[in-house]
Amino acid sequence: MSSLLIVGSLAFDTIETPTGWADRALGGSALYASATAGIFCSVHLVSVIGEDLAIEELSFLESRRVDLSGVTVASGKTFHWSGAYEANLNNRRTLSTDLNVFADFSPQLPLDYRNDQMVFLANIDPSLQLDVLGQIDGTPFVALDTMNMWIETAGEPLQNVLSQTDLVILNDEEAELLSGTRNILTSARAISDMGPSAVIIKKGEHGAFLWADGQMFSVPALPLETMVDPTGAGDSFAGGMMGYLTQAGDTSIDTLKRAIVYGTAAASLTVEAFSVEGLRRADRDKFNSRYRALHALTSFDPVLREV
Amino acid sequence: MSSLLIVGSLAFDTIETPTGWADRALGGSALYASATAGIFCSVHLVSVIGEDLAIEELSFLESRRVDLSGVTVASGKTFHWSGAYEANLNNRRTLSTDLNVFADFSPQLPLDYRNDQMVFLANIDPSLQLDVLGQIDGTPFVALDTMNMWIETAGEPLQNVLSQTDLVILNDEEAELLSGTRNILTSARAISDMGPSAVIIKKGEHGAFLWADGQMFSVPALPLETMVDPTGAGDSFAGGMMGYLTQAGDTSIDTLKRAIVYGTAAASLTVEAFSVEGLRRADRDKFNSRYRALHALTSFDPVLREV
Repeated sequence: MSSLLIVGSLAFDTIETPTGWADRALGGSALYASATAGIFCSVHLVSVIGEDLAIEELSFLESRRVDLSGVTVASGKTFHWSGAYEANLNNRRTLSTDLNVFADFSPQLPLDYRNDQMVFLANIDPSLQLDVLGQIDGTPFVALDTMNMWIETAGEPLQNVLSQTDLVILNDEEAELLSGTRNILTSARAISDMGPSAVIIKKGEHGAFLWADGQMFSVPALPLETMVDPTGAGDSFAGGMMGYLTQAGDTSIDTLKRAIVYGTAAASLTVEAFSVEGLRRADRDKFNSRYRALHALTSFDPVLREV
Repeated sequence: MSSLLIVGSLAFDTIETPTGWADRALGGSALYASATAGIFCSVHLVSVIGEDLAIEELSFLESRRVDLSGVTVASGKTFHWSGAYEANLNNRRTLSTDLNVFADFSPQLPLDYRNDQMVFLANIDPSLQLDVLGQIDGTPFVALDTMNMWIETAGEPLQNVLSQTDLVILNDEEAELLSGTRNILTSARAISDMGPSAVIIKKGEHGAFLWADGQMFSVPALPLETMVDPTGAGDSFAGGMMGYLTQAGDTSIDTLKRAIVYGTAAASLTVEAFSVEGLRRADRDKFNSRYRALHALTSFDPVLREV
């Protein structure tokens, strides 16, 4: 089985929610994605941290088949994001973004990462995403995340990287901004026309939508009694999905659907605790049990009963 | 097969959307619900109209097994609602509400309606809903809709009618207001504790959620390229669901799930045109084809593949 290459941020997050508080908790898109993907496959992680984050704090990732040799320690401080969620956990305000060493992040793939054929480019500058793709041999399967800022300010490199992307993962606001339409079907089609044969639009508590090969697929979020912190839910969704695809060694639409369900399972585990605590406690059996719960939640009799 | 009793409003709707306009189109909760339920079963309709609405305009309902002998013609004008939708069709402003003859609506069931064992009480004053239940012999299966105004102003009669309700159908805002919590699972449980063994929370474009018998079920809305007018989507959802349950002659959870999928099909047909035009054009085959489309949209491999 090949490894999954993940390029993104490692960070400290300071988070306020209506019911709690986490100060300098481990975070970052690459943390959530790799902690989840490591449940399914081996992971090559490329990121940067500062001198204030001991690499030992990431050792739980290694026990999850996440290789850390692509993580650079730069002189300075680690990326630090601080935010607060409103009562419904749907809206958040960014209180501060200190990029620190992440401002100069210039991903360099170790030689043994350059043959990876499964790649997840988490949300970073599209120019860096392009640079990463240029370092990879062959034609990998590329999944891409981005954000409003890049859609608004980096149109050309973003379109360039999209044209080399197989699967793009956006939230509903980003999809609307990128496509210019709020209609989820029209939006997904327009984004697919930019390059990716598969488009996933995440809708937070309302689940996720896939457009691929002219087919639609929709899965709801798992309703949870306890929602603590939504930070990282989207990144663990992507990590779970890409981890499963890598393990499966196949990206057919039926496998993609199963992968999205595992991604949804990952998101549900993430929001039940601060930071990656929910993911750390979970094993493959836990993911399987969430997969089954999502099947029970959504399945109904396919047979028409003309009673 | 028994008949479904539907009690609610018949109205003229004047509707502005970002792309169109309908003046004095046929509307009202009972119109949408009965036009849909009539696809599945015979319907006993109880409502009131004014002298400005010729009963012949409702004759298409009769061709759909909707009995109109419970529709009273009162002196005065028919209920007239006027509203405008914002760009995303999710938010609407009420421009005017002229209750007219509906202000004095006092539902009287014809004698042959009093044995109906399937009842849908559309959104009217909870005191009137209670009054209707008092006119029915036996212990029918009762589905109930209501709205923010009654939750805020008619707490006691609403709680009374809820205690006699089997299935309550609310949208997400109403459920939050009634339960005091936004968490969909906690909210549905709290509302179930008020009486109904089954609680459906409608989420518009995000689908519908069921809590019944300790089980959860979730179905997304069908993504549509063309959305014209969402007016009546919730009422046709309820009508389709109750029509199917009546036809099935059973309210088990598996039948309820199928019924919700037919309700979702009805809502999708409703929003594709103004007034009941989408529903008028549809037949049972069309409903079945939407049922199959919703199954294709949501189904995934239940088998865990530990690849």
